[in-house]
Amino acid sequence: MEMEEESLRDVEQMLGKEEDDIGGMSRSISEYEGLRLRDPLLLKNNRLNTTSQIAIVGANVCPIESLDYEIIENDLFKQDWRSRARGEIRQYLLLKWMLALLIGLGTGLVAFFNNIGVENIAGFKLLLTNDLMLNHKYHQAFAVYAGCNMLLAMAAAALCAFVAPAAAGSGIPEVKAYLNGVDAPSILAPSTLFVKIFGSIFGVAAGFVVGKEGPMVHTGACIGNLLGQGGSKKYGLTWKGFKYFKNDRDRRDLITCGAAAGVAGAFRAPVGGVLFALEEAASWWRSALLWRTFFTAAVVAVVLRGFMEYCKGENCGLFGEGGLIMFDVNSVKPAYSIPDLLVVIFLGVIGGLLGSLYNYLVDKVLRTYSVINEKGPIFKIMLVMILSFLTSCCSFGVPWLSKCIPCPPHLGDQCPTVGRSGHYKNFQCPPNHYNDLASLFFTTNDDAIRNLFIAGSDKRFLLSSLLIFFVTIYILGIITYGIAIPSGLFIPVILAGASYGRVAGSLLSRFTVLDVGLFALLGAASFLGGTMRMTVSLCVILLELTNNLLMLPLVMLVLLISKSVADCFNKGVYDQIVEMKGLPYLEAHAQPYMRQLIASDVVSGPLFTLSGIEKVGNIVHALKITRHNGFPIIDEPPFSDGPELCGLVLRSHLLVLVKHKAFTMEQKEMPSIWNKFRAHDFGKAGSGKGIRLEDIELSEEEMEMYVDLHPITNRSPYTVVETTSLAKTAVLFRELGLRHLLVVPKTPGRPPIVGILTRHDFMPEHIVGLYPHCNPATK
Amino acid sequence: MEMEEESLRDVEQMLGKEEDDIGGMSRSISEYEGLRLRDPLLLKNNRLNTTSQIAIVGANVCPIESLDYEIIENDLFKQDWRSRARGEIRQYLLLKWMLALLIGLGTGLVAFFNNIGVENIAGFKLLLTNDLMLNHKYHQAFAVYAGCNMLLAMAAAALCAFVAPAAAGSGIPEVKAYLNGVDAPSILAPSTLFVKIFGSIFGVAAGFVVGKEGPMVHTGACIGNLLGQGGSKKYGLTWKGFKYFKNDRDRRDLITCGAAAGVAGAFRAPVGGVLFALEEAASWWRSALLWRTFFTAAVVAVVLRGFMEYCKGENCGLFGEGGLIMFDVNSVKPAYSIPDLLVVIFLGVIGGLLGSLYNYLVDKVLRTYSVINEKGPIFKIMLVMILSFLTSCCSFGVPWLSKCIPCPPHLGDQCPTVGRSGHYKNFQCPPNHYNDLASLFFTTNDDAIRNLFIAGSDKRFLLSSLLIFFVTIYILGIITYGIAIPSGLFIPVILAGASYGRVAGSLLSRFTVLDVGLFALLGAASFLGGTMRMTVSLCVILLELTNNLLMLPLVMLVLLISKSVADCFNKGVYDQIVEMKGLPYLEAHAQPYMRQLIASDVVSGPLFTLSGIEKVGNIVHALKITRHNGFPIIDEPPFSDGPELCGLVLRSHLLVLVKHKAFTMEQKEMPSIWNKFRAHDFGKAGSGKGIRLEDIELSEEEMEMYVDLHPITNRSPYTVVETTSLAKTAVLFRELGLRHLLVVPKTPGRPPIVGILTRHDFMPEHIVGLYPHCNPATK
Repeated sequence: MEMEEESLRDVEQMLGKEEDDIGGMSRSISEYEGLRLRDPLLLKNNRLNTTSQIAIVGANVCPIESLDYEIIENDLFKQDWRSRARGEIRQYLLLKWMLALLIGLGTGLVAFFNNIGVENIAGFKLLLTNDLMLNHKYHQAFAVYAGCNMLLAMAAAALCAFVAPAAAGSGIPEVKAYLNGVDAPSILAPSTLFVKIFGSIFGVAAGFVVGKEGPMVHTGACIGNLLGQGGSKKYGLTWKGFKYFKNDRDRRDLITCGAAAGVAGAFRAPVGGVLFALEEAASWWRSALLWRTFFTAAVVAVVLRGFMEYCKGENCGLFGEGGLIMFDVNSVKPAYSIPDLLVVIFLGVIGGLLGSLYNYLVDKVLRTYSVINEKGPIFKIMLVMILSFLTSCCSFGVPWLSKCIPCPPHLGDQCPTVGRSGHYKNFQCPPNHYNDLASLFFTTNDDAIRNLFIAGSDKRFLLSSLLIFFVTIYILGIITYGIAIPSGLFIPVILAGASYGRVAGSLLSRFTVLDVGLFALLGAASFLGGTMRMTVSLCVILLELTNNLLMLPLVMLVLLISKSVADCFNKGVYDQIVEMKGLPYLEAHAQPYMRQLIASDVVSGPLFTLSGIEKVGNIVHALKITRHNGFPIIDEPPFSDGPELCGLVLRSHLLVLVKHKAFTMEQKEMPSIWNKFRAHDFGKAGSGKGIRLEDIELSEEEMEMYVDLHPITNRSPYTVVETTSLAKTAVLFRELGLRHLLVVPKTPGRPPIVGILTRHDFMPEHIVGLYPHCNPATK
Repeated sequence: MEMEEESLRDVEQMLGKEEDDIGGMSRSISEYEGLRLRDPLLLKNNRLNTTSQIAIVGANVCPIESLDYEIIENDLFKQDWRSRARGEIRQYLLLKWMLALLIGLGTGLVAFFNNIGVENIAGFKLLLTNDLMLNHKYHQAFAVYAGCNMLLAMAAAALCAFVAPAAAGSGIPEVKAYLNGVDAPSILAPSTLFVKIFGSIFGVAAGFVVGKEGPMVHTGACIGNLLGQGGSKKYGLTWKGFKYFKNDRDRRDLITCGAAAGVAGAFRAPVGGVLFALEEAASWWRSALLWRTFFTAAVVAVVLRGFMEYCKGENCGLFGEGGLIMFDVNSVKPAYSIPDLLVVIFLGVIGGLLGSLYNYLVDKVLRTYSVINEKGPIFKIMLVMILSFLTSCCSFGVPWLSKCIPCPPHLGDQCPTVGRSGHYKNFQCPPNHYNDLASLFFTTNDDAIRNLFIAGSDKRFLLSSLLIFFVTIYILGIITYGIAIPSGLFIPVILAGASYGRVAGSLLSRFTVLDVGLFALLGAASFLGGTMRMTVSLCVILLELTNNLLMLPLVMLVLLISKSVADCFNKGVYDQIVEMKGLPYLEAHAQPYMRQLIASDVVSGPLFTLSGIEKVGNIVHALKITRHNGFPIIDEPPFSDGPELCGLVLRSHLLVLVKHKAFTMEQKEMPSIWNKFRAHDFGKAGSGKGIRLEDIELSEEEMEMYVDLHPITNRSPYTVVETTSLAKTAVLFRELGLRHLLVVPKTPGRPPIVGILTRHDFMPEHIVGLYPHCNPATK
């Protein structure tokens, strides 16, 4: 398996060779619970070097953070829960629904704004160029076209390079990783949201072969996060009363809703959005969540419909009916027999092969680009400019390769098309002729797809034109992803797939009665299946796009085949990107080799435990020299009969206690803490906004005082016995969405805890590093 | 909350009053891991009375069984896993896909057979009656009609009463419970499958207000189970090589596929089927499963399409295009504004209220009928006969209440309808008139729904006729469910909902521009949302039925509103039935009151532990005096330093060891067991087909020998510390699909295990029985 060898090589590099890997977002980041390892030896020896640690704390490194999807059940939480009135619970539920509503409204609005923006900017650009073309000022036309594209591209790239680098790319892999429990730096920050919205508009309008679907999903997720945090402190937008949502679990739910809303907005496919969130984005799913995402997606659909009604009255500039893709292939009535099915199967197999090749090439290109992009913002912008020029050249130049076709007489005024969209572009041709390639290249991506999906005679496009378009778009799509603009992958893949399908339909027309428009749809399905590897959600999205349910069995068939074929070669494109970005993604199932190991085999140390009533100095020391996010609490005599595991306390909770100086002079339980704090004082702050140890000033005297950690100790941490098989441990960790899992000894008479397992410990790279014979590639 | 008071009352009855509850399937069954408690005191004291136990073993009581969705990782399994060649794993995967294919083919075939059967039998009956009506022989017509109905009803009832009582009812609640981990007696047996197929055909053809959807789901699940067992030993249909599927986990996956295939077959809605399996049926879900159910559903769709093509050539008797419901409301173009939305919201609210009332009444009727049905097969058949006569009277009698309407002249030959289906039934009217009620009552349910969904002028049905139909069908639907025939709930609910929607559409026509046909669809959606409480799957099923995606936002809205409204009053109808049947269903989330308890609070005893190398006599004794299905294994000196928890061994595995007499003379480890057994020798037999202790004969000498239990011990059982909060324990138990969860002590120096938690211990009834102050109704 090629992919696995790849990751093995990564590990080797990490362990032995790469030593200069500190700044920026690099490929092979390993984390020990929020700690970015500077010294590769740290990983090897599983020991934290104390001095280097403190240096890191000082530096402004923004680490990847694990998320805690478990409910932290400490005494304070329980007290709060008990005292919480019925009304308060109802208020919480109501707020949750209200937030879902707001996410739907927000995402719908953004989707609409995005479409208006793209259609107007791109439309203006195309009209301007068209006018020059009609007057045969070809050089000026190219200059205007390429110039507009370049300006828009630079705007998008500048936003990405200087304001929010995290906004580049699709965003779906990062959202997927977040929902799996990994928070990449500032991936859901308000600045990212801003850049994603405008960068996507500029990027798509600049004529790049990129889509707005991935960015819409990311936008939806950002909106969900922003609302879940109760706004943004940095930008002065905060709402109070959102205290219930200050935890990873509720935020995760809101972000899932946002992801569903994103797809619903991008494709006007609400059910498809829900299924996308379920199949591709989310790692945990509950029935209640299904319902809430469904609601959010419904709101998006209603909002979009309302806006489109409003735009019918020419209120939206150049935004016609064209903006939100909706391909009406309702006229095609699929009736098919056995030979048709064989043709479709063939289509699926080739589509799967081409799709997995697409993934392979995207991966290679991404790795190359990431080297360039890491050199600095200027290099990022330069790369975007080169790509923009290349794309302009292709869009403007390639149509000249095509012959001019005389207009069919029965069309009358429709050919050649006046204005910016339409199937019969005049381009460089004499009057009453049209250039079929121009109607694909010299237009927006949405219009190109609509043209490809059109049913009817296969004489509309020459086979040679389709072939040229397919090859160009396939390559452009691959080399465009990875540059520093928000770029979705759906549209390039649909474009390439639809042209492939139409080519195949023309070639195979003697064997089948199926329409070439239907072939284009099936081709798009096969490419999507081959790259994204989703099934049900893609099927529903395509059906919602085309509004024809009768094609269902054929689309299903093609998706299943192309996914199966492509799965033999590599992973889905999003999984590939997650892996490449070094985000520690936890798979749903345990790997076979994990059955041969036990939990204690992978425990990494050193362990740092605290007492139930601990000296402030010790706590501060622990916080300083480690970056652990969880500390086991051990009760010792006289508070218990022997050393006894009391539970786990989180770094962020400790910081709150220390900051508010809830100290006592003596080593005794302190009941006053119950009055001083409520559970939501320990709520999780937005990413990067927690209390920092450096900001807390403590006197010598205070350092000698004690603090009672019992009220904030999670008394029911999940534990496994050290001899538990690693496979079962991994399943427990993954299914319950844990951040820390305590390993306890099997035999009595030893310290009550052996170690803590975190996400990192289940990563194949880590395990293979410890046990090279457990090569995941062999089994 | 009314429902919760209800369950409290159940517990009271169970604890103190009901003592005569042994035979048959009764309401308030509590189980201690496969043990049906005869003596209510057993539960109260949490002690098993040894003598009464042995009596039960002898009696032929078929208990509810918990299922183990955890992988039993004992040494034998691990050895097998290690030695399993790569080819073998591929074979397993291939087989799994093949089984999915077979399930799809089988279910598709049954769905088609069912439709052919119903359409032909009911068609013949209706044609016969129609002829007599045309000759004004009204009494004879009624006699023939009611007689046919009665005969068919008796056939269905006799099958249910004598061959497979488990086949009565919808089957969805039982499938849902199975997928949650509860195996009700013979619910998936081959005899049940047989009765379900034929009983459903007879029942639907007999004109009852029942559907074939629930039975189709049950049929699909039975087919999945049958194939997963490698056929049926009892009926001589077995395949070898299916050893990999001899565990609950793989069987569960196949049954999930079967459930999806059932819905796909019943509604010709493959995506809806997948979503139904996901949203309603399954309790655990994996991405791989999504893919496999999708495949199964696609196969069903292709099979059905193939058969329908075949039937176009008049090869299928009276089966026209009508059989499989597919309502083409494509002509309706929904365009709506704010007032329309308000009307739709109103429709949803009333629909939700009526839906929850439906549930309430169904529950009451079911409880009444179950008392009658328990009296014996003859009573069951009598009840069916009474209902059949009543239904015949309604279908034949109520249309007389309607006026005869003159045929609209533009329809020509179409009015009155000749033949059995069509919208303008002549019935008792003079020539060139039609009876609008007859086209709803005097036809099959599918045709009635099709007639209700027809778009166009609201003059087709008189308002009074629609009202009469609505009231009659609402009541008939409620009183029909629960009689001893296979009866689905979808069709009655859709019928009532569609007529309600059409009534509302006629009444509200001045406020809205929406079509009455669309109103019928929305009414059906509101009723379905109000009774079934599904959202996404219902939405998709309705869209696939009507083949019009433009209605999506409205259908979504109505479903959300009706579900929200109905949720204020009671549970979904399937949950209600699960609860009423006493199946211990584990909810996905922990109840709030569980946070106030800890794991050891609910542990029930007594605990029966075995040593790692145990005397045969002790094992047999343990198997005899308890019905526990899991025994903790404690290693004691000299095999360990002190008493130490080694793991858990299952009853079924012990029985295999004892049956094959893998004994040694001395208390030592026995390496030869590794050669004697392979992992699949311990595979789970089909329900009710395991090894029985009574069948094993052991000599006195053998009883004194030893057996090494280590190889079959699950060395990695999941454990919780006794002080873990019950909420967290419940989440662990539920999320990982456990059957046994070991509770270990917090402090050293005590025996290494405190107790075992099983499904029963998490039931609210059990907890409230122990801690009456933890009333689930109060929080």
